[in-house]
Amino acid sequence: MTQDVQAMLQTHPQPQTLFDQGALAECIAACFDCAQTCTSCADACLGEQGHLTHLVHCIRLNLDCADVCGTTGRVLSRLTQPDQNVLRAQLQACVAACRACGDECERHARDMNMQHCAVCAESCRRCEQACQNLLGSVNA
Amino acid sequence: MTQDVQAMLQTHPQPQTLFDQGALAECIAACFDCAQTCTSCADACLGEQGHLTHLVHCIRLNLDCADVCGTTGRVLSRLTQPDQNVLRAQLQACVAACRACGDECERHARDMNMQHCAVCAESCRRCEQACQNLLGSVNA
Amino acid sequence: MTQDVQAMLQTHPQPQTLFDQGALAECIAACFDCAQTCTSCADACLGEQGHLTHLVHCIRLNLDCADVCGTTGRVLSRLTQPDQNVLRAQLQACVAACRACGDECERHARDMNMQHCAVCAESCRRCEQACQNLLGSVNA
Amino acid sequence: MTQDVQAMLQTHPQPQTLFDQGALAECIAACFDCAQTCTSCADACLGEQGHLTHLVHCIRLNLDCADVCGTTGRVLSRLTQPDQNVLRAQLQACVAACRACGDECERHARDMNMQHCAVCAESCRRCEQACQNLLGSVNA
Repeated sequence: MTQDVQAMLQTHPQPQTLFDQGALAECIAACFDCAQTCTSCADACLGEQGHLTHLVHCIRLNLDCADVCGTTGRVLSRLTQPDQNVLRAQLQACVAACRACGDECERHARDMNMQHCAVCAESCRRCEQACQNLLGSVNA
Repeated sequence: MTQDVQAMLQTHPQPQTLFDQGALAECIAACFDCAQTCTSCADACLGEQGHLTHLVHCIRLNLDCADVCGTTGRVLSRLTQPDQNVLRAQLQACVAACRACGDECERHARDMNMQHCAVCAESCRRCEQACQNLLGSVNA
Repeated sequence: MTQDVQAMLQTHPQPQTLFDQGALAECIAACFDCAQTCTSCADACLGEQGHLTHLVHCIRLNLDCADVCGTTGRVLSRLTQPDQNVLRAQLQACVAACRACGDECERHARDMNMQHCAVCAESCRRCEQACQNLLGSVNA
Repeated sequence: MTQDVQAMLQTHPQPQTLFDQGALAECIAACFDCAQTCTSCADACLGEQGHLTHLVHCIRLNLDCADVCGTTGRVLSRLTQPDQNVLRAQLQACVAACRACGDECERHARDMNMQHCAVCAESCRRCEQACQNLLGSVNA
């Protein structure tokens, strides 16, 4: 995905100056990737028949994180006349959602050997970090 | 819509204690309403043939606001084991998006007599206020 | 919500001629309403501690229906230069999602006395019917 | 992204039998990719100051396609107890949205030398084809 994101950034008529272009492409790709992984992890948890009651909190956080990352990826994909307050606040929401979901998934990967949670936790960490990288540019 | 939102809150097996139930129902309805109004206003601006170049910023903010409100409405609709950091951060993002979009729409309603922007500005103000009302409960 | 939807349709610079305006407003409102109700019902089912394993299919269909209705409501909210093939196909997807989810929720409302499923089933039926009403106009 | 999608499919507790796993992973990745590309192309068109009036139809189709692809990618990411009617209908809606948007973007890439439309058209074609590949499995 990152390749297409970069191609779209490079062909945009009004290149943005707010972010480092590589960091922006990485963050957009990480948001869409995390939206997919969390949607998938919520469903995988739902299919864990013997463990379902222990995974309720994980499913809830996965659903939140999928929605928040999807919206963040869309807001970041728009370069035309952005509003810095909106960008900053949505990036912060994405950091919060990825952290909560990443923590919970990491716990299940470790304690219950849930492999889908392990993949999802990594995706959440990557997205959280990519959002933090961008936040430096809009916090000043 | 508020009636259905309330019916869903009242029949939920794990009633939430974080928010006043009436304020929560109002905020969820305001978020979904604002997501619709902003989607519609972006499209109405796109159809303003003679004025399109003056409405670029408005369209962009409408699209952001539609996404952010949609996600906030979904996160708030989930009562099961919420994460307060995620709730707070997404509510703050919604306040920022509604304020930016409401300001821009209000300007076009006043200066260019855009009636769809007037309806949309009101919807943004209502949603911003409803989010602010809830934020008091999770900020402490 | 219907009142705001109608106000947006009436102030649009390029009023649509494809649909009866009242039927369109009703359908848009029904889509956003059903997206909310299904998001809420998935979460309510997730909170039904003793019955969770019997509600897995319902949760899955609720999540699909919330996404499909949300997208259908957005596509219908856009009046500017629509594509009839896209409108028709998305309306048909919405009918399918609402029917599957409505059937499942109705069963749980009846057999397990799940009140949130009863509210959700009604919302799905209303949305399915509203989409069917519009489909007549784009099928010819 | 495809790598993460595959990792999630492989670690799912209830592996699906409806689709070829490689074709499914490819289609999910193509849907999320196309949702990003179309969101980005709508914004790039919005930034084309001198050509804006010629790009109204393209922006509208981009917005529809972004929503439809996003929803299709989420529905396909869920393997637990799917409903074939919903899958088929949403895949058909995605084919219709990608075809309409791909055609329009292709025209602007050729006639107006819009490079972002060229990238987006390719993404739409890939997603349309990936959905067609899956439709064979659920049409019987």
